[in-house]
Amino acid sequence: MTATLTEMLSQALAATAAAVNAELDHLLPSGDAPEHRVHDAMRYSALEGGKRLRPFLVIQSASLFNVSPAAALRVGCALEMVHCYSLIHDDLPAMDDDDMRRGRPTCHRQFDEATAILAGDALLTRAFEVLAAEATHPDPAVRCELVWQLAHASGGQGMVGGQMLDLQAADLDMDVAAITRLQQMKTGRLIGFGCEAGAILGKAPASLRLALKNYAHDLGLAFQIADDLLDVLGDETQVGKKLGKDAEAGKATFVSLLGVDRARDQARMLAEQACRHLDPFGQAADLLRQTATFVVTRGV
Amino acid sequence: MTATLTEMLSQALAATAAAVNAELDHLLPSGDAPEHRVHDAMRYSALEGGKRLRPFLVIQSASLFNVSPAAALRVGCALEMVHCYSLIHDDLPAMDDDDMRRGRPTCHRQFDEATAILAGDALLTRAFEVLAAEATHPDPAVRCELVWQLAHASGGQGMVGGQMLDLQAADLDMDVAAITRLQQMKTGRLIGFGCEAGAILGKAPASLRLALKNYAHDLGLAFQIADDLLDVLGDETQVGKKLGKDAEAGKATFVSLLGVDRARDQARMLAEQACRHLDPFGQAADLLRQTATFVVTRGV
Repeated sequence: MTATLTEMLSQALAATAAAVNAELDHLLPSGDAPEHRVHDAMRYSALEGGKRLRPFLVIQSASLFNVSPAAALRVGCALEMVHCYSLIHDDLPAMDDDDMRRGRPTCHRQFDEATAILAGDALLTRAFEVLAAEATHPDPAVRCELVWQLAHASGGQGMVGGQMLDLQAADLDMDVAAITRLQQMKTGRLIGFGCEAGAILGKAPASLRLALKNYAHDLGLAFQIADDLLDVLGDETQVGKKLGKDAEAGKATFVSLLGVDRARDQARMLAEQACRHLDPFGQAADLLRQTATFVVTRGV
Repeated sequence: MTATLTEMLSQALAATAAAVNAELDHLLPSGDAPEHRVHDAMRYSALEGGKRLRPFLVIQSASLFNVSPAAALRVGCALEMVHCYSLIHDDLPAMDDDDMRRGRPTCHRQFDEATAILAGDALLTRAFEVLAAEATHPDPAVRCELVWQLAHASGGQGMVGGQMLDLQAADLDMDVAAITRLQQMKTGRLIGFGCEAGAILGKAPASLRLALKNYAHDLGLAFQIADDLLDVLGDETQVGKKLGKDAEAGKATFVSLLGVDRARDQARMLAEQACRHLDPFGQAADLLRQTATFVVTRGV
C-alpha cells in the first residue's frame, strides 16, 4: 500500500467520525425531559468516542453500490449504537468491571449502574427504531432486512452469545477453534453486518454481498487478533483502557495460544486474505483494503 | 358484564397463555450450544409465567380486523419478550433488587447478574428479529411499522425512560400528573403497542386505530392504579412477588396520593372510559371490554 492510501484512509476515517458524531447527536434524545439522566448517559457513551470503524465499513461498502450517503450514515449510526450499548453493558461490575473506556470513566462510573443498564437498553432499542424509519431507505423490504440482520448478528446467537462465552472463558478449556468461534460471535458478527449493510442498502447481487461477507469474516478475526496483541503489547494511556486483563483473568486468547509472533503472522495473513475477497470491486474497494492493513498494524 | 363474559375472558386468557408459551418455546433459542447458559436464562424468564396480558391485547385487537392468528401470535410473543426483558433488568440489584418474580427466584438469583443482563439484552434483540421476519406479515411496510412502534414505545422516551423516572421517584416530588406520565411511559406504552399492533397488522383505518390507542391509554392507567392497590392490599403469596415496596422506598403512587377509595374509583372510571372507546367495534370487542373490568378487579 502506498503512503497516499494510508493518508486517504486516515482522512476518510476522520471524516466518517465527524459525520457519525453529528448524526448521533441528531438521532439521540436530548433536552430537559424529567428522564434526561438516561438520555445524558446515552449521549455520554455514544458521542465523541472510538474510531467509528463499524460505521466506516457501512459507508465504504455502501459506496460500492451508489447508495445515498445519508442512508449509509444512518445505518452506520444504528450499528454504532449497538456497539456502544454492548460496551456499556460489558463494562458493568457484574461483567468485565471496567472503570475506564476511551480514556474516560465508563458509563456506570460516570453515572451509576442502573442508569448505565438503562442507557445500554435504550441505545439498543433506538438502533432498531432508526433502521425501521422511512428516512433509512425508501424500500421497507430493505429496512426489514437491515433490522433482521442486525438483530440476528447482535442477539443471543450472535454478539450477546459471544459475550456469554467470554464471561465463561476462564473456566472453559478453549482451543483456537473455540476462541475463533467466540470472537466471531462477540466482535465478528457486528463487523460482518457493517460490511453487508452496504450491499443490502444497494440491493447488490448475491455474489457481491457474499464477497463483502467473506471480507468481513477475515477482517473481523484479524481485528480480534490485533486486539489481543494490543492487550499484551499496548500502552494503556494510548489505548485508553485497562490492558492485560485477559491474562490476569486466566482467559485463553489468540496470543496466549499461538504466541506473539504466530499471532501477528496470522493477523497479517487474514488481512491479505480479506483483501483478496474484494477483487471483484477493483480500485473502488481500495479504502476497504487499506482498512484491513490498518486494523492489523494499529498500535503494535 | 355477565358471568358468561367473565368465563369467556378467563378461557380466552388461558388459551392465549398456552399458545404464547408454545410459540415462545419455538421462537427462543434452545439446545446445547456452548453459550446455552444465556439461552437457558431467556427461557427461564420468558416461558411459563404471567398472565400474558400484552399478547392477549395483540390477539384481541387483531381479531377485529381479520388478521391471521399466527401473525398476531408472533407479534404478541415479540411484545412479551420486551416485557420479560424489562422485568429481568428491573429486578437487578442495581435497579429494584428483587429476589422473587411470579413466585420463583428472579433471573439473576436463579443464574447470576451477568447472565441476567445478557438474557434481557438477547430477549429485547430477539423481539425485533421476530417482528422483522417475513413470517410476521407478508407486507414489509407493516413489519417496519411494527418494529418502529415497538422500539418507540420501549426506548429511552418510552418504557426505559419511565423506568429511569421510577428509579428517581423517591427523590422527586411527584404529583398525580407526574406519576401519570411516569406510569404511562413505564407500563402504558407497551400496553398501547399491544392494542395498536392489531390495527397495524390489519391495516385498519386511522379512526379505528385511534380508538384502540385511546382504549389502551385508559386501560394502561387503570391497570397501573390497580397494581398500586395490589401493592398495598394484595397477598404476597398470591401475587408471587414482594409487595409494599413503593411505600417502603418512599415513592409516591396513585394510592399514596389519592387514598385507597379514590384510587379505586379512579381505576373503575378509567376502565369504563376505556370501554366507551370501543363503541365503533360493537360486540366484536366484548372481550376487550371485559379485559378492562378484569384488570381493575383482579385480586383487590
